[in-house]
Amino acid sequence: MSQRMSGGSTVAGQTAASKIFTILDAFVPDEPGLNLTQLSRRSGLPLATTHRLARELVGWGGLELDEAGTYRIGVRLWEIGSLAPVRGGLRELAIADMEDLYEATHENVQLAVRDGLEALVLEKISGRHSLEIVARVGGRLPLHATGLGKVLLAHAPESVVDAVIEAGLPALTEHTITDPAELRACLEGVRQNGFAWTRDEMTLGSVSIAAPIFGPNELVVAALSIVVRSRVTDVARLSPTVKTAARGLSRRVAASWHRIVPTPGSHEA
Amino acid sequence: MSQRMSGGSTVAGQTAASKIFTILDAFVPDEPGLNLTQLSRRSGLPLATTHRLARELVGWGGLELDEAGTYRIGVRLWEIGSLAPVRGGLRELAIADMEDLYEATHENVQLAVRDGLEALVLEKISGRHSLEIVARVGGRLPLHATGLGKVLLAHAPESVVDAVIEAGLPALTEHTITDPAELRACLEGVRQNGFAWTRDEMTLGSVSIAAPIFGPNELVVAALSIVVRSRVTDVARLSPTVKTAARGLSRRVAASWHRIVPTPGSHEA
Repeated sequence: MSQRMSGGSTVAGQTAASKIFTILDAFVPDEPGLNLTQLSRRSGLPLATTHRLARELVGWGGLELDEAGTYRIGVRLWEIGSLAPVRGGLRELAIADMEDLYEATHENVQLAVRDGLEALVLEKISGRHSLEIVARVGGRLPLHATGLGKVLLAHAPESVVDAVIEAGLPALTEHTITDPAELRACLEGVRQNGFAWTRDEMTLGSVSIAAPIFGPNELVVAALSIVVRSRVTDVARLSPTVKTAARGLSRRVAASWHRIVPTPGSHEA
Repeated sequence: MSQRMSGGSTVAGQTAASKIFTILDAFVPDEPGLNLTQLSRRSGLPLATTHRLARELVGWGGLELDEAGTYRIGVRLWEIGSLAPVRGGLRELAIADMEDLYEATHENVQLAVRDGLEALVLEKISGRHSLEIVARVGGRLPLHATGLGKVLLAHAPESVVDAVIEAGLPALTEHTITDPAELRACLEGVRQNGFAWTRDEMTLGSVSIAAPIFGPNELVVAALSIVVRSRVTDVARLSPTVKTAARGLSRRVAASWHRIVPTPGSHEA
């Protein structure tokens, strides 16, 4: 995602602002801590420039620097990021329904929106006994291999489905759907059934069951899911639970839509 | 460097980076959407500069611009902010204990750290029947008038207590402690009892009960609280519940401390 817009792969002619963005884009979930050399290499900026901008970012609170010389994203950026409507509106509205679903199942409960060609996880609730899963708040999941993703993709414009297929359907396990025709048929099923499920398609041993969250005009604005262990799972029992919770949330979302700002269109794929 | 710390109130001599920070700092919880004129006025930057930088920020995904011309914090900043260790480490570790506390009480459950002279809310769980409260994830609460704040202040260096008192103890309700000596006595009680509580001190009608989260070496790294309606509350019944949950979380925090990065010191007050 970092090469997305003006985050910049070319260094020459970059504006000062884009250099800042390039430095921030260097931090990724798999490697949230970087030293100066790594930061310079990742951002493609000279060491001196990287050092100067990183120091300014630390001064502001956007980065933190520990004694070992490792930079990390700072609390000030977390705080500012929490003002993004994507979280503020939908998440606040959804938390009570997510709690209900968690209490009824004691499984991982997740809320996601589509951002470009990926699902972006807005919130996740899990307990001590829930299955450990890969999704994290602020993390991204593939659209073709997760319950959340399939729901979001099934209700996305056809051009998005085409783009996902064109980008390739990587096999995350031996059960991932990698055939375009099979994926399209699966999405049709999702639309007809009103929910999506995956078994072992993202991670071996886990099943996800997801249902759409509708805003006004039957527009799908998000997806709600639970993720459980494959072996203990009875999809026929769990899918009505997820659908019921999603329907309740949809009602509240549709009623409060004027307060929720639509998820961004300005940098969608 | 010193005038950059606050995001810059002086415009002359500002670096390009600090101008970006000034623009981002203009967005606050009470007013998360700003038009160009407001953004320019708030940041103290000329309209043309504001427009150019805002457009760069929109291109990157750090701001969003809707059809009405309103700028808001964008999903990219939310996503990057979610990489901050303050959230990533402690929040992920705490969520299961917070769930337990929520299920036992069905009240608002909150986790906060001290950031400078305020409490910063890292996570909040609430249900359909919980009392509606002012705290939001990423929001800040006063140290002298909330349960979370009193716990964090009671275990902060004496210099922090002095600074809070020096900054003034605003009366948020008629029950807020505004007398320095009374506050110091209250904090002593918090240390002795192992928990803090407030009644109607932040908001009329609500009681908060909070307990410290200890890291290694008996260092207090966070506070856990529940907030309930004043009239239904039996502090004697609820405080052991909160203390028990906090103790369980403290054990896990101390055991995983090597994976949790300490909350930032680089821009503390």
